[in-house]
Order: sequence, then structure tokens, then C-alpha cells
Amino acid sequence: MRIAVDAMGGDFAPQNVVAGAVDALRTIGKIQKLYLVGDETRVRAELQKQPVSEARIQVVHASEVIEMNDPPVQAVRRKKDSSMARAIDLVKAGEADAIVSAGNTGALLTASHLKLRTLEGVDRPGLACLIPAPENVFVLMDAGANLEPHPSNLVQYGIMGSRYSQQILGYSRPRVAVFSIGTEEMKGNELTLEAYRLLKQTDLNFVGNIDGHNLFGNRADVIITDAFVGNAVLKAAESTIRLVGRWLKDELQKNPVRMFGAMLAGGAFNTLKEKADPDTYGGAVLLGINGVCIKAHGASSPKAIKNAIRVATEFVEGHFNEHIIEDMKRLNDKLQQAAAPQPAAETSN
Amino acid sequence: MRIAVDAMGGDFAPQNVVAGAVDALRTIGKIQKLYLVGDETRVRAELQKQPVSEARIQVVHASEVIEMNDPPVQAVRRKKDSSMARAIDLVKAGEADAIVSAGNTGALLTASHLKLRTLEGVDRPGLACLIPAPENVFVLMDAGANLEPHPSNLVQYGIMGSRYSQQILGYSRPRVAVFSIGTEEMKGNELTLEAYRLLKQTDLNFVGNIDGHNLFGNRADVIITDAFVGNAVLKAAESTIRLVGRWLKDELQKNPVRMFGAMLAGGAFNTLKEKADPDTYGGAVLLGINGVCIKAHGASSPKAIKNAIRVATEFVEGHFNEHIIEDMKRLNDKLQQAAAPQPAAETSN
Repeated sequence: MRIAVDAMGGDFAPQNVVAGAVDALRTIGKIQKLYLVGDETRVRAELQKQPVSEARIQVVHASEVIEMNDPPVQAVRRKKDSSMARAIDLVKAGEADAIVSAGNTGALLTASHLKLRTLEGVDRPGLACLIPAPENVFVLMDAGANLEPHPSNLVQYGIMGSRYSQQILGYSRPRVAVFSIGTEEMKGNELTLEAYRLLKQTDLNFVGNIDGHNLFGNRADVIITDAFVGNAVLKAAESTIRLVGRWLKDELQKNPVRMFGAMLAGGAFNTLKEKADPDTYGGAVLLGINGVCIKAHGASSPKAIKNAIRVATEFVEGHFNEHIIEDMKRLNDKLQQAAAPQPAAETSN
Repeated sequence: MRIAVDAMGGDFAPQNVVAGAVDALRTIGKIQKLYLVGDETRVRAELQKQPVSEARIQVVHASEVIEMNDPPVQAVRRKKDSSMARAIDLVKAGEADAIVSAGNTGALLTASHLKLRTLEGVDRPGLACLIPAPENVFVLMDAGANLEPHPSNLVQYGIMGSRYSQQILGYSRPRVAVFSIGTEEMKGNELTLEAYRLLKQTDLNFVGNIDGHNLFGNRADVIITDAFVGNAVLKAAESTIRLVGRWLKDELQKNPVRMFGAMLAGGAFNTLKEKADPDTYGGAVLLGINGVCIKAHGASSPKAIKNAIRVATEFVEGHFNEHIIEDMKRLNDKLQQAAAPQPAAETSN
């Protein structure tokens, strides 16, 4: 198995990326080759800091870097020799099985989609995130690829998210829900109402709508939505965690008794910080493209990079994309059957 | 000033509604008459529990109740003699200046819109919520009225939210922002991009896009969005507060030292609960209809009802709707000017 890593992508690149990649090689034996793509001098300097040299690493030079704030489409068009583009090229050329990047999300989506194209049967790729809730971990999709999807795109997200949940999280029959403004069938906008209607016709374990109130209530293992709402909900939840933390800190510092109490209870607050730490969950995955593409978050620690690489190997090993192609064939047959006129009606005219 | 209260609306009606209304009369002298609309026997029974009788109260009988789970449109159509419909009728007939209800939100929006119509110059009403952040309180609009708005509706929400923020919160020049998926001008979907373009042409203190990450960061005093996203973000934030509370509780109970610490720091947790308590903020307001309509949340305590009634009196007293009509005239002149061809271009042909 061969993994291409965008060594220059992310807020702490190349240092965190290189450190995480070396650590991944140490623990994941099935990786035969790991490409570190980026400025050769800087990448080699980081490699020198590592305690052991690693023969499975190959440094691939790329002269440009897509910055976190670059406008995605222009960046992809203009920076042909970026570390991100070159890493994707390795997958396109069949020299790598997967790409991992902590760089500019929009650019990664654009470049992967352009260069690798979608899988047979998939109209639009979608970004899938793992969200930790008290009683389950669920997939939220789409978290950032497609701002104006059609209802049929959401159905395909349901299929892909369900397969993701089965293969990576080990759920046997994941519950798929549409994110809406209420749990009742008639609640929603045009997009979600039509997606609901279509999802009822699939083989998925479709459990209907959920809304923001039951987001973390273990009602669904795959929650599908458009990228605008996905982005809004994820960021709002992150903000709220910070908000509550700030309220709590302010209140705890208001008098010495509280401060002493907080000191005694300190371990709880640290565990809380860890729970809210996205590093634990190995990044988001772009599903539906003809390749495996893992997006680690921008501020990735070495641990987050390592987890993202581990997830990449699981996708490759599990033949994820081949399963998706089969799933899409089954879906299209099913929806065509449902849309076809009844035989009785045909013969009556 | 005369206020019509839907005495049967909400999870704890009529008891909490009647108790809150009586308390409002005790503290708000400018209310000349308060209609309690609902099942006369039950409302009078609640009134009997109050320590003093209140001559300014008039009970208006209504035989039906729109339940919290009734489908809004059907409920409004079928239950003609509901407490909610009758309360709105009092406003329509000019016998009351405002309505307050803790009942079914969808039904309240539908019935108010149908019976009272929109203000001159307003195309669609929107629901405005007040959200407490550490450094400011901001208006989020639309929180539930219009699931598929046009960009021009969002601009009107900006005008109305800005006026709300000035008049009720006392901000002199409220910062208005579009809720989007990033702060840059080019980030968004078709709806928000066009709303952005239009808002730049208005007299509002328009500060551009904000996203979920800076929701509570004191970047804007009025945040405008469609009702789907508004609902999603508000409910997700509420869920996240509960989620963090649950994590924290679990962690604090893990060993005796932590439990003792938490006991000492207990006051902080209680203040936190209060901060997250929507009762403090007097409910949401339906802006843009020809009347004042305050929606207290379903689980309203007497205190929440009292606050909602106080907000209603502030709207009436400040001649809110007259200001909105003037604001809309100014907006339409401004947008027409901007859309008109340049004189030079006209004469050149």
C-alpha cells in the first residue's frame, strides 16, 4: 500500500506532517511506501529531526504551496506544481493508493475532483466527517464539498456515508437520517423533502429526519445534509463548545472557593478538552472520487496526521471504492424500478 | 396599551401563562388591559390562585387549543376558535396592540401572517431571536418563518433586525452580517452571495459574512440567514450546550476528589445553567407583520411569559412598525437608485 502525503499542507507544515507520517510508518506495517510531497529541502530538514530513518519514505519535490487562505479554484488552476496537486497526481498516475492533506479544504476538494473524477455512478463527491457523541460516533455528510446539491446527491451521500460507517466504524446496519428542521416527515425545505421521498425507496436503514435538537442523541449513524448546512452546524457546535468553556472559566474564577474546587476537579476539564479535540478522529474523507482522499484539519498535530494516514490505509484495504460502485449500481436499479410505470398500466392502453 | 395573551399556548399552559401575565401587570404599569384568551373555566381557575385580583385583566373565551404537535397550516385552518386565533383576532380588530403566545410556532407564524398581513414594503415576515454571547447580545433572523427566502427577503431581515437591535437592545449602529460558510465575500451559496451584493448597497452598517466559528465572537449584532439554517444553528448550539454539560457531569462524577471539587465550584455550574436559559430573553419576535407578535418558547416559565409581555410593550411603545415602514421606503428608493441606468449611458444612444 502506498500513501501520498501533502507535506506542505496545514498550519504546522511541514513539521507536524512529517512527524505524523514517520510515526504512522512506525505503527502501520502494511504501508509499503509513503511519499512526502513538498519542498525537498524543508521536508528533508524535518526528516533529519526524526530519531530513525525510514526507508519506505520517498520525498517528491514540489515547488509551490497552496496556502490556507488561497481562493481554491484559482489556486488549483495557477499553482500547478503545488505539493497538493503533485500528491494527487501520484494517485492519478497509479503510483499511490491514497492522498492525505491538512491543506486548504476547498483546493483539495477542487483538485481531487478535477484530477481524479468521480466514481462510476456518483454524480458529486461529498465530504464526510466523524462526530463523537456520548453514545455513538456518527458520520455527517456533506461537510463542505457541494453547496447546492440536488436531492439525488443527498441520496448518494446516504449510500456512501452508510458504507463508510459500516467499514470504518464497524456498524452493521447504520441508521441514515436527513438533517432537517424537525423530525416529522413533512418538515423541511424542497431539498430535504425530496431527498426523504427518494431515501424511503432505497435499501438503506433510513430512519427519517433528525434536527439540531437530537444531533447528539444517538438517533442516527449517518446524517446527510448539504454542505452549507453541514458547515454551519459543525462550526456552530465548535463555537458553542468554546463558548461554554469560556463561561465556565469566567465563573470558576469568580471566587477562591470556586477556584479551589475547580483545581480539585481539574482532571474532568482536561478530559473534556480531549473529548472536544478533533485530533482524535483522523480528519474528514472526500467520498465519491476515484481515489482515496483524506482531509486532516488545518491545525493538525502529528497525532492527527498519523490518524488520517491510518484511516487512508483502512479505506484502501477495505476496497471502499469498489463497494461504492456496486452500491450505486444497486441504488440506480432500485430507483429506476420505483420510477418505472406499473406493467398493468402499460398494457391497459 | 392593550396586550392579548394566548393563555392556552405552551407546554405549561394555562398555569405558567396566567402566572406570568399577572406578574407582568404587577410590574408594568403602562399596560391598560391584558386579554387572557382561552378556556374560560381553566383560565379563571388559574387566576383564583393568584394572591391579588387584577382589574386590568379581561378573560376572552376560546373553545379550542392548537396543540404543540399540530401541523401548523391545518391547525390554523380547522381550529377557528383556538385561543391563538382569537388572540390574533383581537389585534386584527384593533382591540389589542400586541399578541404574546408560547404555543405552536408554525401555527403562530401562519395565523399572524394570514390574519394580520405584512407591513407595507415587507414581502415576507421573519422570526427574530435574541442570542446571548459573552460580549454582546445579537439578533438572529430568520429563526423559523421562511424556509426558501429570496435574497431580497434577507435584505429586509437586515433592515428589521437592525431596527430591532437599536430599539430593544439600544445599539446605536448595529453591525449587520450575513451568515455564511466563511468570512470572505466570495464564500456562500447563491442566496447569501446575492444578499451580500444587495446589502452593500443599503444604508445599513453591513460588515459582510460571518460563519459558525465567529457566531459568538462579537463580530455582528444582527445575523441574517434563511429559516432552515437559522433553525439548524440554534438547535445545534442548544444540543451542544447539553452535550458539554453531560460530558462534564460524567467526568466530575468519576472520583470523589472531583466530586468534592465540583461541590465547591457548584455556584459556577448554576450560573452557567442560568446563562444557557432561554427564559431570560423574552422569546422571539415575528417581524414584518402588521401587528406586534411575540413568541415565547414552548416550555416558558412564568418569568419567560412576563419577559415576553415586557418586550411586547417595548415594541408598541417604540412605534416599531411605523419605523419599519419608513425604513422599507428608504431601502426601496436606495435599491431602485442603484439599479437605475447611469444618466451618461442613457444619453449616449
